[in-house]
Amino acid sequence: MTRAYNFSAGPAALPTEVLEIAQKELLDFKSTGMSVMEMSHRSTEYVQVATEAVQDLRDLMNISDDYEVLFLQGGATAQFSAIPMNLMHTGKADYIHTGAWAKKAIAEAKKYGEVNIAGSSEDKNFTYAPAQEELKLSADASYIHYTPNETIGGVEYDYIPTNGDIPVVADYSSSILGHEIDVSKFGLIYAGAQKNIGPSGVCWVIVRKDLMGKSIPTTPSVFDYQKNADADSMLNTPPTLAVYLCGQVFKWMKRQGGVKALQEINERKASKLYGFIDASDFYANPVAVNNRSRTNVPFTLANAELDKVFLSEATEANLLTLKGHRSVGGMRASIYNAVTEEAVDALINFMADFEKRNG
Amino acid sequence: MTRAYNFSAGPAALPTEVLEIAQKELLDFKSTGMSVMEMSHRSTEYVQVATEAVQDLRDLMNISDDYEVLFLQGGATAQFSAIPMNLMHTGKADYIHTGAWAKKAIAEAKKYGEVNIAGSSEDKNFTYAPAQEELKLSADASYIHYTPNETIGGVEYDYIPTNGDIPVVADYSSSILGHEIDVSKFGLIYAGAQKNIGPSGVCWVIVRKDLMGKSIPTTPSVFDYQKNADADSMLNTPPTLAVYLCGQVFKWMKRQGGVKALQEINERKASKLYGFIDASDFYANPVAVNNRSRTNVPFTLANAELDKVFLSEATEANLLTLKGHRSVGGMRASIYNAVTEEAVDALINFMADFEKRNG
Repeated sequence: MTRAYNFSAGPAALPTEVLEIAQKELLDFKSTGMSVMEMSHRSTEYVQVATEAVQDLRDLMNISDDYEVLFLQGGATAQFSAIPMNLMHTGKADYIHTGAWAKKAIAEAKKYGEVNIAGSSEDKNFTYAPAQEELKLSADASYIHYTPNETIGGVEYDYIPTNGDIPVVADYSSSILGHEIDVSKFGLIYAGAQKNIGPSGVCWVIVRKDLMGKSIPTTPSVFDYQKNADADSMLNTPPTLAVYLCGQVFKWMKRQGGVKALQEINERKASKLYGFIDASDFYANPVAVNNRSRTNVPFTLANAELDKVFLSEATEANLLTLKGHRSVGGMRASIYNAVTEEAVDALINFMADFEKRNG
Repeated sequence: MTRAYNFSAGPAALPTEVLEIAQKELLDFKSTGMSVMEMSHRSTEYVQVATEAVQDLRDLMNISDDYEVLFLQGGATAQFSAIPMNLMHTGKADYIHTGAWAKKAIAEAKKYGEVNIAGSSEDKNFTYAPAQEELKLSADASYIHYTPNETIGGVEYDYIPTNGDIPVVADYSSSILGHEIDVSKFGLIYAGAQKNIGPSGVCWVIVRKDLMGKSIPTTPSVFDYQKNADADSMLNTPPTLAVYLCGQVFKWMKRQGGVKALQEINERKASKLYGFIDASDFYANPVAVNNRSRTNVPFTLANAELDKVFLSEATEANLLTLKGHRSVGGMRASIYNAVTEEAVDALINFMADFEKRNG
């Protein structure tokens, strides 16, 4: 078996080491004679799995006791509803529109109150993040919502938007744990697991405790942060296997030296890839230099008619899932924590060779 | 490695054969060099996994084209909200109260409209299911909701409640696929996977197409049946690994001869266990004989002080997760499809021996 170089935007590559542990334990977790997915979520063994996962995430992100750490179902898309249902206490919120995911969050929030578009990069096809001074923020907003890293456009903010004491809410799905984040600057951070954390089917929510407990009456219980916090994220049966796998990824991250060490590798990977693209006349990246994503790198070929050949030859070379999102076109390399520096080097070598033959 | 006899109520035992397939494929699905959980849910390979899972469930349950088959996140508890949000078109629904799960469904539905308790077995501590003629059904109900099998109480209906053309909605979480069901009698059937289908983290919803498309405006998109149907259950990233595992269980069920063959084994298992309990003065089951669950068998010991010893010796004998739910006490053996006849025989032998030594 050869493991591929997998550049999928999500569900994405996981550390081989984690998959090997899961494989080994799959029919017999800790000599119980049961798989971890066959156990009651109330069992001593499973409660330990969940508790350790939460604590390991707290350790990795240096999350203080002012915050709850929840694992919920429904992905980030469920949070697009849950956030306004729980936090839009004034009936209004500021949203910054920077691409496909921000757009979905905005559409959903409008069901529950007034949404002020405080900024947008639609004028330049979502190839940058609006600067703080360009934002038109509301004094009566319940929160500011933004998408620190747009997975599809490959756009990353180089600052955290603020408006006095108004809580900042961030969809960190595609960049959580890829670099250090000062959690204390946020009211709520959420992230679907399937990019940098684990398999799809679980969404991690880090929420400041004082913001909970004020949900609207029609909030489904599974969306209610306070109820989930009171039940240690086990209000109903959690996705036990997915949480176990996230926990194994957290432990792997710790073994790598934590987020700081991973950030160094990630920035080296991104720097190599952007450096190569910039030095080439054949490849191009459309994003403003200060907003280039460290995790999702879209790029185009000089001649779009070569896209198909590029993808087919890349697959032959064991470089998978490089096709860009249909809304952007071209290619996209997602280089999450589990994508090794070796994989990025192999991609660059292939790109150089392809250019030589077709440029 | 010895696989335990696992009587967990859920997450529950899965077929060893399925776990072995998953284990084998875990790092390399169909020679792609990727795990199934590392693939885009839009990839050809994964779309095939999901499509086959839906088709296999259609085959197993003989589901006609009048119904959508959806796989959603949030468990049955999310459906407790989603059902009224999607289906309570008249602002009212009838619910039958037969225990812990019905109670939760009722509490959640009350957030979205008027709930008429059409029947209840609370008078006898939820040890039976009210008969059709005892029900006080409403002419203007949008639907009738009931729980065909109460996992905690071990109570199973021996009929399907009806009220003319009013759609019947059933929480089949703990007995779906354990016996044949005439889907055409229902407006909606839903089932959390973690009992008879697969790991936790996915809920299967079978909904009559004409009932969709009329959700209330504040319905979260992830809860909207029509939106999910339009997107083939991939409105957002589905729980890919969990769906894959469910699909493997469906294929395993087909290899066993389908639901009819499994039902025969299940009824033999239940009949042996209840037969043994009834023949003994030491063990007892409190449920009305015609409402005894074929999947969840609660039983008490003549002397509750022996419960701890029973559980500890059972564990020694490799018979796991037999403790009854805290609300009922005593023991509970859940004997889902993946719990073999051999496991039930081993349990009965242990119970007989325990009685001999302690009776």
